[in-house]
Amino acid sequence: MANGAQAMLRTLINAGVEVCFTNPGTSEMHFVAALDTAPEMRAVLTLFEGVATGAADGYARMAGKPASTLLHLGCGLGNGLANLHNARKGRVPVVNIVGDHATYHTKFDAQLQSDIETAARNVSTWVRTSQSTQQLCQDVVEAVTAAKGPPGQVATLILPADVSWGEGAAALPAPAPVPPPLADDALIERIASVLKKGGKTAILLGGRALREPALLAAGRIAAQCGVKLYAEVFPTRFERGAGLPHAERIAYLAEMASVQLAGLENLVLVDARAPVSFFAYPGKKSYLVPDGCSVHELALPGEDAVGSLQRLCQVVGAAQATPLLQPEKRPGRPRGKLTAEKVCKAVGHLLPDNAIIVDEAQTSGTMLPMFTAGAPRHDVLALTGGAIGQGLPAAVGAAVACPDRPVLALVGDGSSMYTIQALWTMAREKLNVVSVIFNNHSYGILNIELERVGAEKAGPKARSQLDLNGPGLDFVQLAQGMGVPATRAHTAEEFTAALERAFATPGPHLIEAVVPSVFSGLKLRVLPYLLRSLENLPQPVARALKRKVAP
Amino acid sequence: MANGAQAMLRTLINAGVEVCFTNPGTSEMHFVAALDTAPEMRAVLTLFEGVATGAADGYARMAGKPASTLLHLGCGLGNGLANLHNARKGRVPVVNIVGDHATYHTKFDAQLQSDIETAARNVSTWVRTSQSTQQLCQDVVEAVTAAKGPPGQVATLILPADVSWGEGAAALPAPAPVPPPLADDALIERIASVLKKGGKTAILLGGRALREPALLAAGRIAAQCGVKLYAEVFPTRFERGAGLPHAERIAYLAEMASVQLAGLENLVLVDARAPVSFFAYPGKKSYLVPDGCSVHELALPGEDAVGSLQRLCQVVGAAQATPLLQPEKRPGRPRGKLTAEKVCKAVGHLLPDNAIIVDEAQTSGTMLPMFTAGAPRHDVLALTGGAIGQGLPAAVGAAVACPDRPVLALVGDGSSMYTIQALWTMAREKLNVVSVIFNNHSYGILNIELERVGAEKAGPKARSQLDLNGPGLDFVQLAQGMGVPATRAHTAEEFTAALERAFATPGPHLIEAVVPSVFSGLKLRVLPYLLRSLENLPQPVARALKRKVAP
Repeated sequence: MANGAQAMLRTLINAGVEVCFTNPGTSEMHFVAALDTAPEMRAVLTLFEGVATGAADGYARMAGKPASTLLHLGCGLGNGLANLHNARKGRVPVVNIVGDHATYHTKFDAQLQSDIETAARNVSTWVRTSQSTQQLCQDVVEAVTAAKGPPGQVATLILPADVSWGEGAAALPAPAPVPPPLADDALIERIASVLKKGGKTAILLGGRALREPALLAAGRIAAQCGVKLYAEVFPTRFERGAGLPHAERIAYLAEMASVQLAGLENLVLVDARAPVSFFAYPGKKSYLVPDGCSVHELALPGEDAVGSLQRLCQVVGAAQATPLLQPEKRPGRPRGKLTAEKVCKAVGHLLPDNAIIVDEAQTSGTMLPMFTAGAPRHDVLALTGGAIGQGLPAAVGAAVACPDRPVLALVGDGSSMYTIQALWTMAREKLNVVSVIFNNHSYGILNIELERVGAEKAGPKARSQLDLNGPGLDFVQLAQGMGVPATRAHTAEEFTAALERAFATPGPHLIEAVVPSVFSGLKLRVLPYLLRSLENLPQPVARALKRKVAP
Repeated sequence: MANGAQAMLRTLINAGVEVCFTNPGTSEMHFVAALDTAPEMRAVLTLFEGVATGAADGYARMAGKPASTLLHLGCGLGNGLANLHNARKGRVPVVNIVGDHATYHTKFDAQLQSDIETAARNVSTWVRTSQSTQQLCQDVVEAVTAAKGPPGQVATLILPADVSWGEGAAALPAPAPVPPPLADDALIERIASVLKKGGKTAILLGGRALREPALLAAGRIAAQCGVKLYAEVFPTRFERGAGLPHAERIAYLAEMASVQLAGLENLVLVDARAPVSFFAYPGKKSYLVPDGCSVHELALPGEDAVGSLQRLCQVVGAAQATPLLQPEKRPGRPRGKLTAEKVCKAVGHLLPDNAIIVDEAQTSGTMLPMFTAGAPRHDVLALTGGAIGQGLPAAVGAAVACPDRPVLALVGDGSSMYTIQALWTMAREKLNVVSVIFNNHSYGILNIELERVGAEKAGPKARSQLDLNGPGLDFVQLAQGMGVPATRAHTAEEFTAALERAFATPGPHLIEAVVPSVFSGLKLRVLPYLLRSLENLPQPVARALKRKVAP
């Protein structure tokens, strides 16, 4: 017989959970002590809980199965909430193990006592405080089952210290997987008839429908029915690049998304939600589907979106259709003073085979999709829940899941500072992550937002709230201070050479890309600039759109 | 007439809230834009919400009134929860302003949508989502009133974007202060009779009872009745040093606290709670008051603890008694290889008049109370809720509240990394904060805890979870990367000289103190070592106690 912690670890391993991203405290010491009984469990220490939860998110997106976290009571969970929010919104499976005081100790309301279940509910569909050592392994099985879904979810198991240290627990075997059902035949028929009618119709792919099998099915349907493919604005995991059907991401800015969706009569959603504005703005619409456009949802959450899409492909008679595949095409090597656009160009120029891009570049990454569309096949992990501070931790998790694939994290300066501690874990675990920090010395996106909310008459005090100068952040020193080799680039030549070196050398690297704000000096000309970012936009269409949205 | 944000800012200022620690996003842009209409409101930008909330905590402890925070939706609040937990446990007033989506936008469940109220309830006794621009200023008045208490509380006002940008709001005047009532006369008489009987009695001071007026009253009672004074383990704000009555802090380790409290027959609580163990440990007691000791609570939360103590002083006939005051006494200048103990000694040797010490030094700070007991008068702000990552942010807030006082933050290496971003705000605001990071390359306290929970047979995998080597953190580079001048000390001479220079030079400074773990090599001899930290312990007592607890 084992103590609770030992049996729990064994049950997690049996259920396929083989990595634990940790930031433990006293109440988790028996779990920590038990790690030496569980060689199959990789324990990855982080210096901050937001790194642990973001890493668990990034890991699960790439591994296709959950990692666990190990967090210290309610406050540790609190520190991890933002990235669990991103996991929740991306339907990513995560199993949180949150240590708690011993059951008999809670009544004393000691310093660290707080209501963990309430905090957990904010992000978890499944929450339980384990009540006894004997029950613990059954709780673990249920937590993992809930996390795996379908759909993927955040499950939080609260582990009182005495349940963990108690003796007499027995590990349990893996739970049986739960296959998701296909969508209803009648629904598939109805949507097929919409697609076959043609007209202005688009398919919006999200979730698991942005991976190769679904993309190929969608590409065949698109070729057969002449419909357009879109990808949701912040995909959980998007397989793209040369050789795959191309789907254009819905733009972050509602003004842009409206341009993309203008004139649509039918929109078919596959594991995606109808596009809405990220924020509300005075006098602007929140719901971005054009008036009069019918929305058809192929599969509900928990249904088999990919299988349903493949079935739809057969029903529309597209099974033998030839999908339009993205041709291989890289931009040239950029030259001259570095800009965010040139960073994206260099990425497109150099991206290695089979890379994983973690995209938290905000404004600076505007041109990234365009410049990488024809690059070798790669995965893009995006900011599913909009809670910044996700990029560097998700890169940690992706690199742990895929040690043989290069990981490129593209992160804004403001965003990077929420969870900059992730760099230390990259160094400690010798992860193959290249982190590019776009240092434009500002919360660049908020300068646009200040304008968009109609608060453009902002004075110097307001502007200073978006300004990251005085002092400027030195990311080279920050990275080196955590053991990550780093360099700074002011020119495109410097950046491209540094990126080339970083991809060629194992272990983590950081490149600080000193760039001007994308929109500095572009005031009121933001939209025409952004329109260029719409990938593969035919020139006449681009010109027409520019006329439509230019002030 | 003004828009909601403008009237809100004016109402906050009217109510005495003059500082806002911010980390805004799009939904807060109207609040940000309104800052230029409110020159009396100081807006202090932070790079991470945990810095904003910790700074608000530190500010209010020193200013005696709340600051506000400005946080971005549920995820921003989530990032700030840990330090709000510390404020809650310390009964510190904080007014959170949490921006939310426009009221009509929430139904679309956009990416950043989450249940903010639930997250807020975890730390706030007062939570409200403002429903209209017209109601907003009344909501602000109620939030500030709730925060001010008595007792001080965390109040969270959720501000939908359209409530903020709506027009037609009118600012409101300051609410009337609510004076706390004195304790019941009969209770004071009862406690007076306990004290007058003498015997083994102690007074445990906490909360507001650790400030000069209460300390003097308690000192007079102690002199008159021959009782001992204790301070709670993690005080919100503790005024101490030469010229004040001395109160010994209850030790963090339950084993130590039991030694301090052994044999007590009566314990009078003044704005403090009966001591309990920080964590539970197998086979050890959680409740630390000795069996048979009667506990007497002088004032309930919300009652006037200080006034009640002063009344008690009169009733026991101690109004004219002469309290025993701590004599001025500094340790000598330390020499040789640097240790945590020598850092504490150097602090005692050099501490300037009227300093504010933020103490998050964990194991490395064990000897700090002893070495600073006779230093010039100073305030100590401690980790009230046990959620680490509080030290550097609280130092930011204390320095904003008291620009003319030197602030010394003593922080463990592990703790510092939770909210290391605070250094940037210190640089940006040119705050007079000296941050000392004890770099022992480990979560030092967890090495003890691993032993205490009975998990001492931990293997290398467990030990590696407490180890902050590989790579070691370079705090000099981290500080410089955020614009804070920094130096590293390996010897006591280097450290003392650096500390002297830092106190003499305005603006922020960081000193990395490279020290061995306090308990490395001390395994199983932890308690005798710790006993030395009990301040002013007479030698025969110390010897007796050592016999009692030594293994």
